Amino acid sequence: MGRVIGVGLIGHGFMGRAHSLAWRNITLFTDSPLTPVLKAVAGRREDAVREFAVRFGFERYYTDYRLMIKDPGIEVIDNVTPNYMHKEPTIEAIEAGKHVIVEKPPALNAEEAYEMYKAAERAGVVNMVAFNYRFVPAIVLAKQLISSGRLGRIYHFRAFYLQQSLANPNAPLTWRLKREYAGFGTLADLGSHIIDLARYLIGEINEVNGVLYTFNRSRLNPATGLSEEVNVDEGFTAMVKFSNGATGILEASKLATGHFNSLIIEVNGSEGSIRFNLERVNELEVYLTSDGELSGFRRILVTQRTHPFIRFWWPPGHVLGWEHTFTHELYHFLTRLNEGRGVGPEAADFKDGWRVMSIIEAIAKSSREGDWVNVP
Amino acid sequence: MGRVIGVGLIGHGFMGRAHSLAWRNITLFTDSPLTPVLKAVAGRREDAVREFAVRFGFERYYTDYRLMIKDPGIEVIDNVTPNYMHKEPTIEAIEAGKHVIVEKPPALNAEEAYEMYKAAERAGVVNMVAFNYRFVPAIVLAKQLISSGRLGRIYHFRAFYLQQSLANPNAPLTWRLKREYAGFGTLADLGSHIIDLARYLIGEINEVNGVLYTFNRSRLNPATGLSEEVNVDEGFTAMVKFSNGATGILEASKLATGHFNSLIIEVNGSEGSIRFNLERVNELEVYLTSDGELSGFRRILVTQRTHPFIRFWWPPGHVLGWEHTFTHELYHFLTRLNEGRGVGPEAADFKDGWRVMSIIEAIAKSSREGDWVNVP
Amino acid sequence: MGRVIGVGLIGHGFMGRAHSLAWRNITLFTDSPLTPVLKAVAGRREDAVREFAVRFGFERYYTDYRLMIKDPGIEVIDNVTPNYMHKEPTIEAIEAGKHVIVEKPPALNAEEAYEMYKAAERAGVVNMVAFNYRFVPAIVLAKQLISSGRLGRIYHFRAFYLQQSLANPNAPLTWRLKREYAGFGTLADLGSHIIDLARYLIGEINEVNGVLYTFNRSRLNPATGLSEEVNVDEGFTAMVKFSNGATGILEASKLATGHFNSLIIEVNGSEGSIRFNLERVNELEVYLTSDGELSGFRRILVTQRTHPFIRFWWPPGHVLGWEHTFTHELYHFLTRLNEGRGVGPEAADFKDGWRVMSIIEAIAKSSREGDWVNVP
Amino acid sequence: MGRVIGVGLIGHGFMGRAHSLAWRNITLFTDSPLTPVLKAVAGRREDAVREFAVRFGFERYYTDYRLMIKDPGIEVIDNVTPNYMHKEPTIEAIEAGKHVIVEKPPALNAEEAYEMYKAAERAGVVNMVAFNYRFVPAIVLAKQLISSGRLGRIYHFRAFYLQQSLANPNAPLTWRLKREYAGFGTLADLGSHIIDLARYLIGEINEVNGVLYTFNRSRLNPATGLSEEVNVDEGFTAMVKFSNGATGILEASKLATGHFNSLIIEVNGSEGSIRFNLERVNELEVYLTSDGELSGFRRILVTQRTHPFIRFWWPPGHVLGWEHTFTHELYHFLTRLNEGRGVGPEAADFKDGWRVMSIIEAIAKSSREGDWVNVP
Repeated sequence: MGRVIGVGLIGHGFMGRAHSLAWRNITLFTDSPLTPVLKAVAGRREDAVREFAVRFGFERYYTDYRLMIKDPGIEVIDNVTPNYMHKEPTIEAIEAGKHVIVEKPPALNAEEAYEMYKAAERAGVVNMVAFNYRFVPAIVLAKQLISSGRLGRIYHFRAFYLQQSLANPNAPLTWRLKREYAGFGTLADLGSHIIDLARYLIGEINEVNGVLYTFNRSRLNPATGLSEEVNVDEGFTAMVKFSNGATGILEASKLATGHFNSLIIEVNGSEGSIRFNLERVNELEVYLTSDGELSGFRRILVTQRTHPFIRFWWPPGHVLGWEHTFTHELYHFLTRLNEGRGVGPEAADFKDGWRVMSIIEAIAKSSREGDWVNVP
Repeated sequence: MGRVIGVGLIGHGFMGRAHSLAWRNITLFTDSPLTPVLKAVAGRREDAVREFAVRFGFERYYTDYRLMIKDPGIEVIDNVTPNYMHKEPTIEAIEAGKHVIVEKPPALNAEEAYEMYKAAERAGVVNMVAFNYRFVPAIVLAKQLISSGRLGRIYHFRAFYLQQSLANPNAPLTWRLKREYAGFGTLADLGSHIIDLARYLIGEINEVNGVLYTFNRSRLNPATGLSEEVNVDEGFTAMVKFSNGATGILEASKLATGHFNSLIIEVNGSEGSIRFNLERVNELEVYLTSDGELSGFRRILVTQRTHPFIRFWWPPGHVLGWEHTFTHELYHFLTRLNEGRGVGPEAADFKDGWRVMSIIEAIAKSSREGDWVNVP
Repeated sequence: MGRVIGVGLIGHGFMGRAHSLAWRNITLFTDSPLTPVLKAVAGRREDAVREFAVRFGFERYYTDYRLMIKDPGIEVIDNVTPNYMHKEPTIEAIEAGKHVIVEKPPALNAEEAYEMYKAAERAGVVNMVAFNYRFVPAIVLAKQLISSGRLGRIYHFRAFYLQQSLANPNAPLTWRLKREYAGFGTLADLGSHIIDLARYLIGEINEVNGVLYTFNRSRLNPATGLSEEVNVDEGFTAMVKFSNGATGILEASKLATGHFNSLIIEVNGSEGSIRFNLERVNELEVYLTSDGELSGFRRILVTQRTHPFIRFWWPPGHVLGWEHTFTHELYHFLTRLNEGRGVGPEAADFKDGWRVMSIIEAIAKSSREGDWVNVP
Repeated sequence: MGRVIGVGLIGHGFMGRAHSLAWRNITLFTDSPLTPVLKAVAGRREDAVREFAVRFGFERYYTDYRLMIKDPGIEVIDNVTPNYMHKEPTIEAIEAGKHVIVEKPPALNAEEAYEMYKAAERAGVVNMVAFNYRFVPAIVLAKQLISSGRLGRIYHFRAFYLQQSLANPNAPLTWRLKREYAGFGTLADLGSHIIDLARYLIGEINEVNGVLYTFNRSRLNPATGLSEEVNVDEGFTAMVKFSNGATGILEASKLATGHFNSLIIEVNGSEGSIRFNLERVNELEVYLTSDGELSGFRRILVTQRTHPFIRFWWPPGHVLGWEHTFTHELYHFLTRLNEGRGVGPEAADFKDGWRVMSIIEAIAKSSREGDWVNVP
């Protein structure tokens, strides 16, 4: 493999574990032209960040990310902190000349995301928002089918991101339920994914008309033992119009009992349709009108050697887990970094991140105002 | 079986065949307290109506429904004509003292439906809109689960009625695509079903916010060989708010490639969820949080002897077809007629029909005006 | 429709209801060249047979089938009695010059079935064993695919007929569990169906090697309140070899908890595969290697107008129930009767019935002897 | 994490990659009491083994495994070579006092496997055959259900391991198709997995009656360009009897078009059933008769925190890939090594490996002789 490139991670929670694994697996399995090395991880709680660094094989750790950003051995900063920590460290990293990756949603709001986008553009660094579901092999295959015209004219797009973690009114408060830390609720956490996939698969969204809802307006904060207001949405629904004329429905909810992690997508075109469910991440369903009397949704197990990214892995039928969306995504990032160009249109860059946040804000505005809102 | 009751059918197309079969099967299979007899069928094309009468065993036929309505041997008029023929014959039948059944949608618009409702109320006749999907055994089981509280507080309702008959731009024009005959397009034809089921399963709808769309604005009229304007919707999407606080999404489309007859429903409550798809009419999926570590959607084959209506049919696992929704529905009608009371709340009466048309109009209005509309 | 043909039914249980419905529906829905008329039904319990005759619209009833057989207005005798009543009345009907249909299994054993076959051959009457699953539209479509070579060389056939009615050791004794009335147990009742389908879909079976099992060797006879020996099998498994070289597995069990009526078939060929499950009677799954990168089992909803028998019914997607296998089967019988020729190879005639019973006996013999047995 | 333990790998193909990844992930994700370190890998082709060592982070490599076995820094030898290389190096490692892991099937035949078992027993080293599917979380959950009696008395076990790699007659020859390298064909490669799972889930197998088949008796050897005889089976079918009275069917085939990696299991008990398919590795279907009117197979997404091994990974619904069966398995090995005891009954030890090979030989014998064979 090619030259070594130093990576610095800010944050070490759920996403920190997922990204660290992916960085390591790139070397083991892919043909990446760059060899990522986990130089350092930054976190505020020293015990925790030290343990994380040891476990995942980082060379060192920092309790102040600002020091890490100055580390000349680090060329890429990967920011996997909670939403309210996205903008500032990322822009500082950009200004220090680092290439940057930030977890989704890219920021608390569109304004922050715009600042990040402009900062990256000015600095000319490679930048990516880690919308990892663009790197599910089945989703890439779906994109190929749509782009190639196999589905004909696109009529409809539907995307639902359904979980059940808040369905129980006694589920505790977390930072994701506080506007000051999360920006938006399920709309930001899950909704950002399906908005990004809508744009990736179908194209730009012009108008939105949605509604945000919060059924359980207060929850117990386990840290304080007190009940606190939930000041973000538990979910949302929106109708959208695409610039190519297709209609869309988007919904994200954490009140959807029975769904553990159902990101469900369906696209209907004049000559075919596709369906996907993240709970069956290795499968894509494809319908083609040209199948005539034998037409029916084909359950494609997207593990053939010629399917996207599968060449790096196992023989057909040996299914991949959710985690390798990150391997594929960071592999793509390194490939583009090596080529000296941006990550789009396959991955989401900071401009895409800003577009997603603009759509999120437009949906929230439409919910407040009760009518259609043009995406600015 | 009990006393004979004469039935007169107006119309003899697809729905005429389905209703005639059902009327006959009631006698063969159920414990109906009344024995329906197919007295007469009315239609304008004599050759066709005669052939239909012979084939389905009607005692006689009429080419003028007005004469049939006067037939004293007929106590029930079953109107299975196209939408634009619903109001007038039905009200005439009511005024002649007949009990009445009308196919869905009940009328071209809410005003017509209101007239029908008031006429039936004044006359005191038993009246029913043939929303047959209320009589799918799996749907009745779903209703029981929701009503009994097994799903807890209802958060979400989603219903999609998807077909593909118009996905091909070259599909011909039919009366269903002309406002003067159909009132509305897919919104009336398929949308009325899911609006009715929404009210049946969840409760009253207060507000709607929808959009109607027509991608293919003209189609060839095979009768004239000329291209004509399509002046109704090919489909619609709507967000709705229920009086009990639940949120809802409704969509009906005939542009949904890959779907032959997918009426898909999902309900999420705080303690459970249900799912249904008409293409698998014998199945209901049920999720209960009380299943804990062994929780997962149960695929229930609704063919056990204790399941709704199954006692009339076959041993467990011998699945029923779509057609028997009508058998169950007309059986219910006769049972209530015998008891001298209305068909609700299990079946839709003309008041329900008017409510459905009001919601349809509210959705159309919201589509024109771009904002939320209170259902009047 | 064409000339009237009188039908006489012997027996009026579950199968009596199913056949009577089918005879009536032929007139209502198909283009049958003959119009069947339900002339008479025969049964020993007068109250029951009278009630059945009234309900299903038979012109008269008999308490002695021998009298019915002499009725000159009856041209077809349809024998839907329990297994031990198959041979004698059927042969008597044949000898009276009637065309004959007998429910499956055709007889208690191969010897009886052979007598029936030879009697029908001698008399030159049209004869059919009512293996109705040959008339599932999805099965006919599967047959077309296999016959046309679309699946390439056939490697494997698997068929499982699974129910759960005996899984509970406390389930009561019935006539089906007594050798003197049933011949064999689940092997005869369910096994005969999959043996017939094996021959229909793949071809002749040369050798078998099976095992019969009875886990619960006594059950309570509800009529006597006493425990009685179960002297037939509760199920069986067999490996089979087809004359074309394909390998096969057959299994039927009524101990298969969770299965209500799962007749599951899979065929693997060098260029494609098919799968079917009776619990989803309207669906056929088809895999074609020629689909390449987009290959996956297609779930075909076998309700398109061009699919087998669908032209008689409803628009696409309006699914059929189990019961119409009989409508299609009896329609086929009448068509062939009108043409003056036998029902094969599409339907099973008495020779096929004898072959099935021979295979059943060979499986039972292999179970006793513990090795492969050539089918005589 | 605990003390470091040196691992030496013999072989570096498909399984070498899978095991290496798993060893590394143990440290990253689990609470293993021992910290495995990849000390060395052995292989005959120096270029290849060097590249593998670099890529997967081994400290060094050997071109002669015998030298590696002498390395005092290595405590565990993990043998992932082809079948014909299993016995000799493994016994040598045992005799050098190493703890040993060998890929499945453990040996070319039962005699070899017995030697390995006895050698390990004599030496008192921890030993494991890498039957990794025992470590699918869904399979462990199934085992818990069966062992706890939730399914009642077990009637039936069915297991099918279906792939399609040989369905095309033009697929090339590989070492797996030569008896001298593989011992048996699909029976060894796929069959050994389901035989092991049969014993794990249900219990000991007493008698077998099977058939091996080879449809395509010669294939092109790509190395020589010549056609060579295929002298092993392409697949097999067997009926088996368990010591607890349950009946079983086993089948493995590489001619099963449409199946990429379908290891399908079904167990039917008097009070419940389970189903599993490796292509949907995160799911277990469970039916419980106690569900009564709401009974149906539950699709359990085995990703809840309390499900087996899930505590090491991601939040619910974030599905795992095939590869982590190895992580779980090697974690289990280390846990037992630390406790100073054998890997059973959860994992397969060398005695289990010998039992599996004995059953394989018994099936082959029954195929030759055409009757039931007692497993010695």
